[in-house]
Amino acid sequence: MWNRRIWSIKSPAHILRVSQYCTKKPTDTIASVAHDISNRQHLYITDPISPGSIFFLPGGTKIFNKLVGFMKLQQENKYGFEEVITPLIYRKSLWEQSGHWENYKEDMFRVEGQDTAKEEYGLKPMNCPGHCVIYKRFDKSYNDLPIRFSDFSPLHRNEASGALSGLTRVRKFHQDDGHIFCTPQQVEAEISKCLELIDLCYSKVFPLGKDGKPTNYMFRLSTRPDNYIGSLDVWNHAESVLTEILNRSGKEWSINSGDGAFYGPKIDVLLADHNGKNHQVATVQLDFQLPERFDLKFKDKDNTYKRPIMIHRAVFGSIERFMAMLIDSNNGKWPFWLNPRQCMVIPLNTKSESMMKASEEIVKRLRGEETATDKPVKLNSFHFNVDMDDRAEPVGYRIKDAILKNYSYLIMVGEKEIETQKFALRSRESRELQHLSTDEILQTFVKLEENYK
Amino acid sequence: MWNRRIWSIKSPAHILRVSQYCTKKPTDTIASVAHDISNRQHLYITDPISPGSIFFLPGGTKIFNKLVGFMKLQQENKYGFEEVITPLIYRKSLWEQSGHWENYKEDMFRVEGQDTAKEEYGLKPMNCPGHCVIYKRFDKSYNDLPIRFSDFSPLHRNEASGALSGLTRVRKFHQDDGHIFCTPQQVEAEISKCLELIDLCYSKVFPLGKDGKPTNYMFRLSTRPDNYIGSLDVWNHAESVLTEILNRSGKEWSINSGDGAFYGPKIDVLLADHNGKNHQVATVQLDFQLPERFDLKFKDKDNTYKRPIMIHRAVFGSIERFMAMLIDSNNGKWPFWLNPRQCMVIPLNTKSESMMKASEEIVKRLRGEETATDKPVKLNSFHFNVDMDDRAEPVGYRIKDAILKNYSYLIMVGEKEIETQKFALRSRESRELQHLSTDEILQTFVKLEENYK
Repeated sequence: MWNRRIWSIKSPAHILRVSQYCTKKPTDTIASVAHDISNRQHLYITDPISPGSIFFLPGGTKIFNKLVGFMKLQQENKYGFEEVITPLIYRKSLWEQSGHWENYKEDMFRVEGQDTAKEEYGLKPMNCPGHCVIYKRFDKSYNDLPIRFSDFSPLHRNEASGALSGLTRVRKFHQDDGHIFCTPQQVEAEISKCLELIDLCYSKVFPLGKDGKPTNYMFRLSTRPDNYIGSLDVWNHAESVLTEILNRSGKEWSINSGDGAFYGPKIDVLLADHNGKNHQVATVQLDFQLPERFDLKFKDKDNTYKRPIMIHRAVFGSIERFMAMLIDSNNGKWPFWLNPRQCMVIPLNTKSESMMKASEEIVKRLRGEETATDKPVKLNSFHFNVDMDDRAEPVGYRIKDAILKNYSYLIMVGEKEIETQKFALRSRESRELQHLSTDEILQTFVKLEENYK
Repeated sequence: MWNRRIWSIKSPAHILRVSQYCTKKPTDTIASVAHDISNRQHLYITDPISPGSIFFLPGGTKIFNKLVGFMKLQQENKYGFEEVITPLIYRKSLWEQSGHWENYKEDMFRVEGQDTAKEEYGLKPMNCPGHCVIYKRFDKSYNDLPIRFSDFSPLHRNEASGALSGLTRVRKFHQDDGHIFCTPQQVEAEISKCLELIDLCYSKVFPLGKDGKPTNYMFRLSTRPDNYIGSLDVWNHAESVLTEILNRSGKEWSINSGDGAFYGPKIDVLLADHNGKNHQVATVQLDFQLPERFDLKFKDKDNTYKRPIMIHRAVFGSIERFMAMLIDSNNGKWPFWLNPRQCMVIPLNTKSESMMKASEEIVKRLRGEETATDKPVKLNSFHFNVDMDDRAEPVGYRIKDAILKNYSYLIMVGEKEIETQKFALRSRESRELQHLSTDEILQTFVKLEENYK
């Protein structure tokens, strides 16, 4: 079997000694909790060769991709976003036009060719100017709007090296970024839809409250900062629009005076960690400035050209930080759909050829592997993260080990199971055994995964 | 409906005048063919603000994501690869250690912080050194090998500005990159598996031959270049291993003397464009040098530490260039599964409420949209790129227009169709109508998509 190697089983020494879960002290920061769990579960590493950039290991990459996949599905098939892929380096003149060079230069990386031309670029800290370039390329009419671009590009911000910390203070990160270009009349509906997706994410899909309780998030309105661009009138109007929406949301909200982006006021979503410390996750920012600076237009019903309004928004915010919040809340016990270790198959007697063969068949089936040389793996098929522990160790030891390693489910394969073709399935949480056929197990897993359980 | 806007229907002027297909002149390069088709189908744009970096528009992004999704499925569920996500900028010392600073500096971008620390980095042109950093982090034993990392990171190479050309000569690109770390005994089997995946891709899934015929690709062995690193003996051995594998492959192959990478010899896969000009797509490179430079080790059966061998390989090669090859071969007529415009629904009479309603329901169903506020879109569900043309234009005009726009299928909704709940489906290629229920149409599409048709 091509894919059966498991990081921790073949190099078990440093893993087996400790539990896969973290005994969290109240004084731990979410960065240190994530770091601790990652060390036990091999999710990611950092290295001084690239300070502030995460190396996601296979397990962490699986979680990262699942999160991105979830968000793409919602954005594209429920909220009308269209994904684009945009450059990472842009000539300095773009950043001058956007105002970043003036207001954000210290936090940006400069990029330079090393040939004779020595062209100078800025490494993007945000996607917005790139999306303005796309918007501007084609003529727009009022009924093209709203246009909603999403983008999962890596972003770079030059955080001070002393401030760098695990997943939460990084230099390279990814946002589930989106920009909406709309008419003034569409702003309220668009922002409401943003808040709806935020609620779907935080209240319905990700139980980020303490001990699996629903997430308790709150809104914060950040207003005009000192280094603002644009006119006072426009700022005041934008702030009053957001205030009105927040008042109608029925949610708790607060004001953070002077902490808006330099181009507009914003609503941030705050989530408390296990210490009660608040972290910013989602954000919705109103922007009247970039459309001005990039001279963006649309042709209105009356045949005159008008400025669209731009909304910057992210739901997870930084995917890296969101992962840290997830770990802080689940303590390493990943829900099945996000778990890089979904199921461990254990042949009761590893010397029994039939048990080994049956176990391998279950693994192959649940992994959805295709072995025929001339057949590709099918699109949109289910592939579960299933491993097999065929070490010559006692069954009790292997069961305990799989639970310590955070496998959501265990499948035990013995003589009786082979005879009846009903295999013993147990979950991480309960000793109770269910006897199910491979098909029934597959359907159980499919149902869990497609419903984000 | 949130997602119904179509680029070309609401701003049709510059689109409607021309066919969506390209009348290719034999003198056109693949870059110009791709550029022409992209202009008609809105796949991507370029801009002097970021020379050599592609802005993928929503349609191009859909194709890009499908290609990446296909390759991830094969690599992870058939060929034992594990995806990792690695940093884009690394301190100069990494590139000195890898040999890139000495041998590749002119082609690399230098990155610098603009704060007082002014730290210096190289923007990665390749993923290999980052994968060596991950390999080295944890102790490895012989039964951990082979380890196969895949990575879809954006890469940057500073091509001369005069050489830049559409999708084929770019500065920012993505590879379906992979690195295999294995024992000397595993090299042959691993390379054979690489060639198997290459054949699956080029012979089975992507018909890149002229007029839909099977792809005719060939191998080329590139040998020791002038700026090689390492010892002559090791190079000679590596070249003889590859020669043997090529001889056994039964495929046509040639030698390109002195064109190997500075760290090892390679097998490239060449594909001819419509002019018969060869382009490099896939590559398999043998590398005895990087493991040496990064002091990579594994503990062998005899408890001594040995060097793994590294294989660099890509199947599409540059995904951007592969897209250009696809366009050159399909001439803008995308197969259904890759088509950003899979189906157009046409209500025969746009003033009929029932036809409009029935059409909207079909669109929603085929798109797999979820409208309940509190329900997420399910994982691994099918979502087809379906639009609706409800302009007040004659049916014949709208049908012709949808075909010109390269929709794979058209669904016509009239009174009879509503009554029988069997809708008239026709393909781009044939005037023949099939009358099918929405469920049957959905199943037809699912089957096409999951089999890469």
